Amino acid sequence: MPELLRKLLVDLGERSYPILIGEQLLGQYDLTSYVGGCQVMIVSNDTVAPLYLEQAKACFAGKQVDSVILPDGEKHKDWQTLNLIFDALLQHRHNRTTTLVALGGGVVGDMTGFAAASYQRGVAFIQIPTTLLSQVDSSVGGKTGINHPLGKNMIGAFHQPQAVLIDIGTLVTLPDREVCAGMAEVIKYGLIRDLPFLHWLDQNLGSLLEKNPLQVAEAIYRSCVCKAEVVAIDEREGGLRAILNLGHTFGHAIETFAGYGNWLHGEAVGTGMLMAADLSAREGLISAAEYQQIYSLISRAGLPPLAPAAMRPNDFIELMAVDKKNVDGQLRLVLLQAVGEAVVTAKTARKNLEATLNAFCQR
Amino acid sequence: MPELLRKLLVDLGERSYPILIGEQLLGQYDLTSYVGGCQVMIVSNDTVAPLYLEQAKACFAGKQVDSVILPDGEKHKDWQTLNLIFDALLQHRHNRTTTLVALGGGVVGDMTGFAAASYQRGVAFIQIPTTLLSQVDSSVGGKTGINHPLGKNMIGAFHQPQAVLIDIGTLVTLPDREVCAGMAEVIKYGLIRDLPFLHWLDQNLGSLLEKNPLQVAEAIYRSCVCKAEVVAIDEREGGLRAILNLGHTFGHAIETFAGYGNWLHGEAVGTGMLMAADLSAREGLISAAEYQQIYSLISRAGLPPLAPAAMRPNDFIELMAVDKKNVDGQLRLVLLQAVGEAVVTAKTARKNLEATLNAFCQR
Repeated sequence: MPELLRKLLVDLGERSYPILIGEQLLGQYDLTSYVGGCQVMIVSNDTVAPLYLEQAKACFAGKQVDSVILPDGEKHKDWQTLNLIFDALLQHRHNRTTTLVALGGGVVGDMTGFAAASYQRGVAFIQIPTTLLSQVDSSVGGKTGINHPLGKNMIGAFHQPQAVLIDIGTLVTLPDREVCAGMAEVIKYGLIRDLPFLHWLDQNLGSLLEKNPLQVAEAIYRSCVCKAEVVAIDEREGGLRAILNLGHTFGHAIETFAGYGNWLHGEAVGTGMLMAADLSAREGLISAAEYQQIYSLISRAGLPPLAPAAMRPNDFIELMAVDKKNVDGQLRLVLLQAVGEAVVTAKTARKNLEATLNAFCQR
Repeated sequence: MPELLRKLLVDLGERSYPILIGEQLLGQYDLTSYVGGCQVMIVSNDTVAPLYLEQAKACFAGKQVDSVILPDGEKHKDWQTLNLIFDALLQHRHNRTTTLVALGGGVVGDMTGFAAASYQRGVAFIQIPTTLLSQVDSSVGGKTGINHPLGKNMIGAFHQPQAVLIDIGTLVTLPDREVCAGMAEVIKYGLIRDLPFLHWLDQNLGSLLEKNPLQVAEAIYRSCVCKAEVVAIDEREGGLRAILNLGHTFGHAIETFAGYGNWLHGEAVGTGMLMAADLSAREGLISAAEYQQIYSLISRAGLPPLAPAAMRPNDFIELMAVDKKNVDGQLRLVLLQAVGEAVVTAKTARKNLEATLNAFCQR
């Protein structure tokens, strides 16, 4: 029997929606109450579909359920692949009352969400994230989009789902490398605004990496609570929400430099958070001892401690210049003003930034 | 000196914006108060840019003004061309505070609007429509998008501009065929909800086709008032707004069949409105004499009275099946329940629809 372990609401007025966390939900939990019309289009990829597509279809009994399978990987998060979704919707004559369902990781979720935001100028969608990273981060909050060769997530929309269904059983089939990558975003919440959670993570990291269900459900729940709070305060990133980008300015530069998909998003964010913490220490915001504790946690989570071998400081400078947080040409970074408290600043000393880049570049 | 002849507000709460109608506005009217940041990207096409790009730039004195020139024509209203806008924005490092400016007809406006809706998940934009059709219709109301091979405007967003600047002087360089096409949308407003305007059009059609400035300004103003009223009541087309699609269900089928750009949008809408009026007469909603009056006005405006030579009734049936107004597989059409009053209905008798299709198809 399906077991709903936790449920929470993302409070966005008329755009509010629930996050449902549990075991054995896929295949058994009835999601039709979140479907307005009679058509459903499940979007998945060629890794996830063989494992979970049939179970996902069973959540929409009585509806016209079609599906489209995308090639797996961040390097396919582009217009050509997005267009496969539009092709399928039009070939199956889905109308404005259709509901799209994202079954997969962050790439599937971001693309399905953007397809839902754009198809016939906007239709409904549901998130069923199957990776740790997408369960704790990208499936919640309504950020959708695709990459451009010159920058990650540069084309997209804010479009909130009707519901997020998280079946932690999907983590059983998730490769260890992807679990580690997801832990980067989990750790992020502790670093930016939840010090008790950071301590809890420090004590439970071993159980989490072994995918112990109770600890995993707890980590996902607390991560989603944190994300839902921030998103409810600042849905469209006018201010506070930018703190969710801790490590992402450096991380996006790494992903773009390495070529989409060669580094996992979470890996790049892990290294990026280390760089942000290092820069925070150089700026005198946190102590060297605090930086070492952060370094220890991120290392134990199996995340890479240095930028890609071929990457130079100037590569960072150039790639970070197109970051979405920048205003009128000025670089804006998320730093830690204390452990457990993030801040967005445009006032970083250039010499400190250069020192951080030199410290994390291998040449 | 620039002469602001008329000004009206599209009342959408915090998304409200003005429509400014006048002569010699391009090159002289200061638009910087509608620009939030210091960056402006003017999007135009290779027909309009040589005529008006430099004048448009002068409306944004003191800003960083870049431009991107698209190939002209409905057949370029696709992802490849849209991507030229994203390329330019990223190459010139435009950030989230940038303002896009659409300088051209409906295709440029729709694509620029969708680029603004999607770039970095949404930036501001201004409409400077230079064709009669875009001045009276597509530049107002926030519908943006691109075509898909299987359907027109299937991919897009609702995204309202900061302002619409209509310089009727641009009509001097507009080919007669495009003036006639624009008249289709002008006549539409009379047909759907403004009988006095329809009578005025009947009396002033000659002056309008000769581009007499005072009559043209009046026709544009009254069209924009009508559109602004409907959009203010129903921004996202939950109900009333669908009446603005009079003639468009048939018209989109014609455009898709003919290949984008071979028929002008307004031409297809003109024929489509005739078909809708013919069907309304067959349904007993308007009289045969009223249909003849509509036929007379649309013919005198130089709009085509029949579907493309090679198009058959079945082509209409198939192409209309993907119309955005359809709900759960049922065709919905905009008809006239009286001259000057439109209605959306799913209850058309099949035999009447077939009779209309047979009457307008040449084989």
